[in-house]
Amino acid sequence: MQKRIYSLLVDNTAGVLSRVSGLFSRRGYNIDSLTVGVTADPRFSRMTVVCRGDDRILDQIGKHLQKLVDVRDIKILEKDSSVAHGLAMIKVAVKPEQRQGIISVADIFRAKVVDVSVDSLIIEMTGSQTKLDAFIELMKDYEILELARTGMTGLSRGTEDVVQLDE
Amino acid sequence: MQKRIYSLLVDNTAGVLSRVSGLFSRRGYNIDSLTVGVTADPRFSRMTVVCRGDDRILDQIGKHLQKLVDVRDIKILEKDSSVAHGLAMIKVAVKPEQRQGIISVADIFRAKVVDVSVDSLIIEMTGSQTKLDAFIELMKDYEILELARTGMTGLSRGTEDVVQLDE
Repeated sequence: MQKRIYSLLVDNTAGVLSRVSGLFSRRGYNIDSLTVGVTADPRFSRMTVVCRGDDRILDQIGKHLQKLVDVRDIKILEKDSSVAHGLAMIKVAVKPEQRQGIISVADIFRAKVVDVSVDSLIIEMTGSQTKLDAFIELMKDYEILELARTGMTGLSRGTEDVVQLDE
Repeated sequence: MQKRIYSLLVDNTAGVLSRVSGLFSRRGYNIDSLTVGVTADPRFSRMTVVCRGDDRILDQIGKHLQKLVDVRDIKILEKDSSVAHGLAMIKVAVKPEQRQGIISVADIFRAKVVDVSVDSLIIEMTGSQTKLDAFIELMKDYEILELARTGMTGLSRGTEDVVQLDE
């Protein structure tokens, strides 16, 4: 099983999320994460889909995505030539004597403490899937009360394959 | 039009994203953003849906979401008692003489430069919808080449309404 990240430029319409996610669930494709957000041009959204499978399946997924009417542009975010990050928020139960230890680990990962209560902390962190997983794994030494994450979004590095859409 | 953030604890199944997004598109509800990610317990995912409408519509959406079989728990993230943040990546065209100016603005917003090329920068930033919008608005003084964002995710502050799911 390999992982591939598709970055789609799609029309900013009400149905596009449901059409893309429907394609995956109908055909039983594995989807690791999907994020979508409007671009600087409000007519379009950028959707980032992380999927898993063998090469044949991953190519099939690309072809199906390309055929959807809302999809204006599709590219693969390759590991070496792109940045793909997600955001995670982790609420951890902390006793007063543990607090400093957790904050030190958070500092090493450049994570931010965004909420402190008597018996809990919320830590926010961004990074690659691997980095997020590593941090969450470390937090399992404490008691994770709640975990919320966004899925990955990303862009290719540099300016070579920027899409110009003028209609 | 008001905004409401629903935080759902859902079964981690292939079809859940398509069922939730289908509900919104079928009924024509406005969806600002939707994010989903697996929790510390791999049987469940946390889904955060930001929607818009009047009180009646927003209550209706809540009732419909609650009825979905995959939804185990649903709560509203209130502004004062929760943290809701998203991640945005912005690729900006920069001339050498502009670079320092953009980096200074990024610093003020505690945004990170994650890629630098001869003629572009990728800036990553996290924060509330308002903060993200404000930063993107400032970047429009330069040329935004590409913009990718994740939608919002969030948690309620403190430990009062943490859901215990043991089956």
